[in-house]
Amino acid sequence: MARAPILTPQAEDFPRWYQDVIAKAELADNGPVRGTMVIRPWGYALWERMQREVDDRIKAAGAQNAYFPLFIPQSYLQREAEHVEGFSPELAVVTYAGGKELEEPVVVRPTSETIINSFFSKWVQSYRDLPLRVNNWSNVVRWELRPRIFLRTTEFLWQEGHTCHATEAEAAAYARQILDEVYADFMDSVLAIPVVRGLKTARERFAGAVNSLSCEAMMRDGKALQMGTSHQLGQNFARAFDVRYLSAAGQQEHVWQTSWGVSTRMVGGLIMCHGDDAGLRVPPALASVQAVVMVVKDGEGVGAAVEQIVAELRASAVRVEVDERTDTPFGRRAVDRELKGIPVRVEVGPRDLADGTVTLVRRIPGTKTSVTVAEVARDVAAALVEDQRALYDEALARRDAATVEVSTVEEAASAAANGWARIPWAVLGVEGETMLATQAISVRCLVRADGGVPESADEPDLIAVVGRSY
Amino acid sequence: MARAPILTPQAEDFPRWYQDVIAKAELADNGPVRGTMVIRPWGYALWERMQREVDDRIKAAGAQNAYFPLFIPQSYLQREAEHVEGFSPELAVVTYAGGKELEEPVVVRPTSETIINSFFSKWVQSYRDLPLRVNNWSNVVRWELRPRIFLRTTEFLWQEGHTCHATEAEAAAYARQILDEVYADFMDSVLAIPVVRGLKTARERFAGAVNSLSCEAMMRDGKALQMGTSHQLGQNFARAFDVRYLSAAGQQEHVWQTSWGVSTRMVGGLIMCHGDDAGLRVPPALASVQAVVMVVKDGEGVGAAVEQIVAELRASAVRVEVDERTDTPFGRRAVDRELKGIPVRVEVGPRDLADGTVTLVRRIPGTKTSVTVAEVARDVAAALVEDQRALYDEALARRDAATVEVSTVEEAASAAANGWARIPWAVLGVEGETMLATQAISVRCLVRADGGVPESADEPDLIAVVGRSY
Repeated sequence: MARAPILTPQAEDFPRWYQDVIAKAELADNGPVRGTMVIRPWGYALWERMQREVDDRIKAAGAQNAYFPLFIPQSYLQREAEHVEGFSPELAVVTYAGGKELEEPVVVRPTSETIINSFFSKWVQSYRDLPLRVNNWSNVVRWELRPRIFLRTTEFLWQEGHTCHATEAEAAAYARQILDEVYADFMDSVLAIPVVRGLKTARERFAGAVNSLSCEAMMRDGKALQMGTSHQLGQNFARAFDVRYLSAAGQQEHVWQTSWGVSTRMVGGLIMCHGDDAGLRVPPALASVQAVVMVVKDGEGVGAAVEQIVAELRASAVRVEVDERTDTPFGRRAVDRELKGIPVRVEVGPRDLADGTVTLVRRIPGTKTSVTVAEVARDVAAALVEDQRALYDEALARRDAATVEVSTVEEAASAAANGWARIPWAVLGVEGETMLATQAISVRCLVRADGGVPESADEPDLIAVVGRSY
Repeated sequence: MARAPILTPQAEDFPRWYQDVIAKAELADNGPVRGTMVIRPWGYALWERMQREVDDRIKAAGAQNAYFPLFIPQSYLQREAEHVEGFSPELAVVTYAGGKELEEPVVVRPTSETIINSFFSKWVQSYRDLPLRVNNWSNVVRWELRPRIFLRTTEFLWQEGHTCHATEAEAAAYARQILDEVYADFMDSVLAIPVVRGLKTARERFAGAVNSLSCEAMMRDGKALQMGTSHQLGQNFARAFDVRYLSAAGQQEHVWQTSWGVSTRMVGGLIMCHGDDAGLRVPPALASVQAVVMVVKDGEGVGAAVEQIVAELRASAVRVEVDERTDTPFGRRAVDRELKGIPVRVEVGPRDLADGTVTLVRRIPGTKTSVTVAEVARDVAAALVEDQRALYDEALARRDAATVEVSTVEEAASAAANGWARIPWAVLGVEGETMLATQAISVRCLVRADGGVPESADEPDLIAVVGRSY
């Protein structure tokens, strides 16, 4: 009799599979207030490593971390017209605090352009203060009607970067630098998720931005997930909040700005890009635990072998955990690691050990081999490098196979049933975009024919990448 | 004519000095909503390094990070009677969200015992699930009537740890382990702040706890600051939220719990324990920038010397920053570093360099010496170690000098005008404690005669450490 699968198979019901993995791999739970989530330790460990990697890149790009308040006076939101229109329906409002009704209600931040610009207007005086580049790691709240854990939650964790520059060109270049050197580099090299970088259409643009750039990834069901965005804000907020500087030439000028962010939504992307019917698969570069050394059963020499293997793995800079909980059945422990997607298991038992070997199980290719104790550290280190690349290559091949070149709106709509369509923007246009929207299909981004990121939607010969999305 | 001081001198007006340092060293600003704060990059860099050091110790103590929601249903707070009574007056309440009135208002977390225990009751089933140890880095909100930046703010950043154990003794030992190995160790060895560890009296205990332990530090004005707390919660929340496990003996038992936290209030403690009339003094072990290499003036060989010095400092694992902004007057740049409390400045100018020397300025002892380029890396590394210790020794000596042994309540009250009093708890008692409270003097903690931490306030021969506090 075949064992009943622990997870709903992806092919049967992808959304159900997604919920199953999150529950069984102990990644997160739904919170008691609708749309909120509890991120459990294994889910949080993924986020924590993402934070560290993104944070290093943000600092290398010259931005400094700071913290802005959770509470924003309602009046601030109203100063930038498009911005307030975009966010109003999603706001959570504190009306009562410290035992009484508040005179002015305060909004729980949905994003911080307004409050940050109110401080920029104090901090920026002269061209010497520019560029000013700050980043804030925090939680934000957007009341969601159709929440989906990690992907669309009422509260989520993120970083938002905000910068001021002396010229439009410098701001544009910085928005692009963040997209490339921080987000795309991190997603490609750490998450092993190949992303398409492009420009949002006016319809999909951030409320208050002049241009929005994004990184888009394809999930295993062919849908797109927007993994991160980097916006040129022009002088919209600078005018609304009067952020000006005295130029070297002695003129008062408004600054040019950018804002950019990635969030816990990336955890959802990771699950849906790499997970399979046995659970999550965590890229080695991201995993807080890259290898678990498991005692199959206690016995002669097992303790000493485990100690030696762990020491050698640590010496090879492998992030390792030991599992000696032999009071829990081995099968259950192995399945748990499988579900959690830990890249490598080294299984140490007395029987193999009598032959001087242990079992090396690689989660990503799904292989199981017998290796000698002397070779295990070297083999694990090599497997981690190989499997990181394999995961990326697999995702890229899948995306390429599910992307088709089309030349009509109808073909685009039909291709979007299983993946992405690429269609000339001149053929699609705003009218075609509106038509696709009625079928829940959107332009994920515009790209140049050579794959480059356009500076404006008015460039000739752009390609629209079209698909369904989360 | 003497230069007007940049900061109000401490001796003249300590609270004013504190506000001045925070503004001039660009540590923080007041937020627009009363009692909130903006933590500026240099202030946040202090917090970020505190987080990293505390987080490493928390993980070493076996707890894992997780994230629990910001929003808590109002009904949750009401399940533990003392807890709701303690926190009710400080709550901020969301009554309106997503465009309409909420059916059940939600509270912005003031602390997370209630929501975390509602999940513990799902996650804990068997003795095999114990101990369960989670930690949450987050923001919390407590509406403050008399806010003071970093010390008492409506929103602050912190970590809160929550654990479940099978026995009362294990929970007590873990609360103590956190106090000693995480908090006190970090404060002594990184913050260079000597802390007294002790037990809170019933009056000062956390709302819902059986026992509260704390770390108390003396500020430069003689007042106490509670730097961190670790609580034994007994089975109070376990009963309220029905957190039970099946014991090895097959019995359903309620778990025994702890909770513990430190916050951005520590930044305030750092300022008030180490700052002087020239600004902040950051302990080298904490500083994100330990040394700044400053170009005094451009000239022959300056660039090459700076490059060499920076390379050697980095090779000695010194966290270093370069300041080549010679378009800003040197004096202004030096004062800025003085205010920000960067431990070491290496000033490189063409005149000194002609003699093969640079100037080494040490912020903590306030010395200024000429050293050769060849020796500078070694001297800086040595200075950082020495000055870390000097800062601790200075704080300890100051605390000892301002602490007096007394034997009556009147003497205790009078000693608290300038520092702390130590008085036998048997002499003071609850009555004396109540009397002192009318003069805004409190028992900071109870300690054993040998300095040890009592297990209960009923132990004989305890000493009450008494003082004014923030």
